[in-house]
Amino acid sequence: MVSRRAALTATGIGLVGVAATAAVSAATADPEPAAAPAFDGAVPFFGEHQAGIVTPAQDRLHFAAFDVITKDRAKLVEMLREWTAAAARMTQGRDAGTLGAVGGQPEAPPDDTGEALGLPPSGLTLTIGFGRSLFRDAAGVDRFGIADRLPAALEALPHFPGDALRPEISDGDLCVQACANDPQVAVHAIRNLARIGFGVVSIRYSQLGFGRTSSTSRTQTTPRNLMGFKDGTRNMKLEDAELLREQLWARAEDGAAWMAGGSYLVTRRIRMTVETWDRTSLTEQEAIFGRDKGEGAPLGKAKEFDEPDFDAKGADGQPMIAKEAHIRLAHPDFNNGAHLLRRGYNFVDGTDGLGRLDAGLFFMAYQRDPRKQFVPVQRSLARADVLNEYIRHVSSGLWACPAGVTGDGDHWGRALFS
Amino acid sequence: MVSRRAALTATGIGLVGVAATAAVSAATADPEPAAAPAFDGAVPFFGEHQAGIVTPAQDRLHFAAFDVITKDRAKLVEMLREWTAAAARMTQGRDAGTLGAVGGQPEAPPDDTGEALGLPPSGLTLTIGFGRSLFRDAAGVDRFGIADRLPAALEALPHFPGDALRPEISDGDLCVQACANDPQVAVHAIRNLARIGFGVVSIRYSQLGFGRTSSTSRTQTTPRNLMGFKDGTRNMKLEDAELLREQLWARAEDGAAWMAGGSYLVTRRIRMTVETWDRTSLTEQEAIFGRDKGEGAPLGKAKEFDEPDFDAKGADGQPMIAKEAHIRLAHPDFNNGAHLLRRGYNFVDGTDGLGRLDAGLFFMAYQRDPRKQFVPVQRSLARADVLNEYIRHVSSGLWACPAGVTGDGDHWGRALFS
Repeated sequence: MVSRRAALTATGIGLVGVAATAAVSAATADPEPAAAPAFDGAVPFFGEHQAGIVTPAQDRLHFAAFDVITKDRAKLVEMLREWTAAAARMTQGRDAGTLGAVGGQPEAPPDDTGEALGLPPSGLTLTIGFGRSLFRDAAGVDRFGIADRLPAALEALPHFPGDALRPEISDGDLCVQACANDPQVAVHAIRNLARIGFGVVSIRYSQLGFGRTSSTSRTQTTPRNLMGFKDGTRNMKLEDAELLREQLWARAEDGAAWMAGGSYLVTRRIRMTVETWDRTSLTEQEAIFGRDKGEGAPLGKAKEFDEPDFDAKGADGQPMIAKEAHIRLAHPDFNNGAHLLRRGYNFVDGTDGLGRLDAGLFFMAYQRDPRKQFVPVQRSLARADVLNEYIRHVSSGLWACPAGVTGDGDHWGRALFS
Repeated sequence: MVSRRAALTATGIGLVGVAATAAVSAATADPEPAAAPAFDGAVPFFGEHQAGIVTPAQDRLHFAAFDVITKDRAKLVEMLREWTAAAARMTQGRDAGTLGAVGGQPEAPPDDTGEALGLPPSGLTLTIGFGRSLFRDAAGVDRFGIADRLPAALEALPHFPGDALRPEISDGDLCVQACANDPQVAVHAIRNLARIGFGVVSIRYSQLGFGRTSSTSRTQTTPRNLMGFKDGTRNMKLEDAELLREQLWARAEDGAAWMAGGSYLVTRRIRMTVETWDRTSLTEQEAIFGRDKGEGAPLGKAKEFDEPDFDAKGADGQPMIAKEAHIRLAHPDFNNGAHLLRRGYNFVDGTDGLGRLDAGLFFMAYQRDPRKQFVPVQRSLARADVLNEYIRHVSSGLWACPAGVTGDGDHWGRALFS
């Protein structure tokens, strides 16, 4: 059938409303499913890099940050080993453990909580990250004898203008990013890791997301954020082999040998005041982003993937793409060539008690070194981006995500703790 | 490919863990999508009954309750008329209004927020309900001249033992249930209704849900709740024509003529303490529900849809299905034959600040008369159900959902306000 997207693509910009109306009216006469089904198979767990980074972004997220509540290094390492085994099983569509009906343990709690029984693997990936506080707590204490392994790139993020961070939903000792095409599968995975970690870790905060806001592969269409704009058009993608090598994967010579093949993840919960945004004119919305809303083309260009012309001027002599437009401020040309691999998700967490949706973007971006990538880009955005009137960063995290687990003898954190 | 479900079905009970392991290991060699794609077409908006009640339950929910903030009846009715037009458009995959690029209004805010551009209708249904406070506020004031239309069946729900209701996320003047197979489409719909209602209504609370916890058609498999059990096996389904006539649809002779062809919706946000549940033995979990966890069969029977035998006794002389098992207490045989059409969804709303997932079931059930259906069943459950140790009702709503909109001259609330 004809979707809103097909209608838009077929007609280009400038006719959005009319074309969509006409095309989709026709579509309603033929209400059969036609979109390709979401991938519900299994993504390999073992590999050089962790899955869930360049893996084509799945549609749903359950992200969880954990506090380590034990002081016992051996217990922590043992839990990481158990997590790895469970993750290897669950990502392949298996249970975290037996349901209890076999193995002769009906009197024990099941080793799987059961809510994903009957569901396919659904593209589940589980990606672990280590926070700065795992290496050295706020008082500087080396809690687990790994302070000398703290990567320089895990330097605490600076305060950015406008930050309104809530400590209770920021930072953390460990994180797990669960992405899948079925939210029940992602939820099940985090819950079972939390269950396995009972007594060793405690969930600090967690975030559900839907509607991936970036593509990580050229095989994917660009989705829309809750401001209604296509987001992540210029994302680093898995096909960009050279760029990934230069700007995604950490190397031994970067300083922390145990992070070779890993990547650094920045998480930011960005609340949007969508009600205010929704009362802004289309012209202003497009000027703020520097793209048109329907097609997502840079202003002055026709197509989403056309290169923006930052020098072009309109009839009024003003730049077509304003000096403080989002795509200009975030563009690699104005940030020392810095790219990010973004993997964010839209969220709506009910309402805020003031009659407004508690909605926005859970921003996630992977990179080789946040000091050279996220930090300068965010400095530029925080200083000048007109979008700041409509958004607020309320949570922040920075995570060292190691290389992949290479086989059955390996486990999450082995290189770090060995 | 072989899913966890296929593995279970093929092998029956008692071999769950082993069979799933073996079958799904084979599956990982063939990681191609195989599940039928979720319906992404359009569900008709106009009809005798509102869509979203017997419509085969979609996978995602965005439910919103609204406060009416105007005292002007005409403004309220006009908004309901605009909502109806927007709902008729959005459910067919069209925008709520033009994006602003056509129609010559680029200097006006767009009439659609844009985040569903490019997405198919995704089975979206929008279902409206009217709360008791719309007819008569807490002080008894007839706010909009419709107090005499208050249906007797909209009698305030009693306090049930164990209720821990939070007023700020309970009740409301209006509700809209948005169900779709894409959460972005459901979110988009509620947001645009809120945008259209600016100055007339304000969102009181909203709830996202995933993983429908009931089937409303025999064409659907029974999903699992976050306790890991199949839920809603015995639900009223759209194929039960006689039962729907007797127990789902209100009639003029029930008292409120304007509600003929409508139905009453009870909403309850049921928080589950899943961490405690997860440390309960399988035997106890199954005894509490009265069903086995893998297959979902009544204890003592082999298959999910086998009739439970409430008289059967085990070798120890005790009932196979305990006196206080959930399925016994909720069964029509012990509740004057009362059935419900359940349409609930699982939810996870992050964490609760105590390291626990804020997770559970957003229960929704439609019926002809809550006084004869939900209330007696819930009385029975609240009094004796062993599940109460693991759940808590924190939000409650009761809604009169009128008949369907029959054509272009009709609108939501026309019968009520005419």
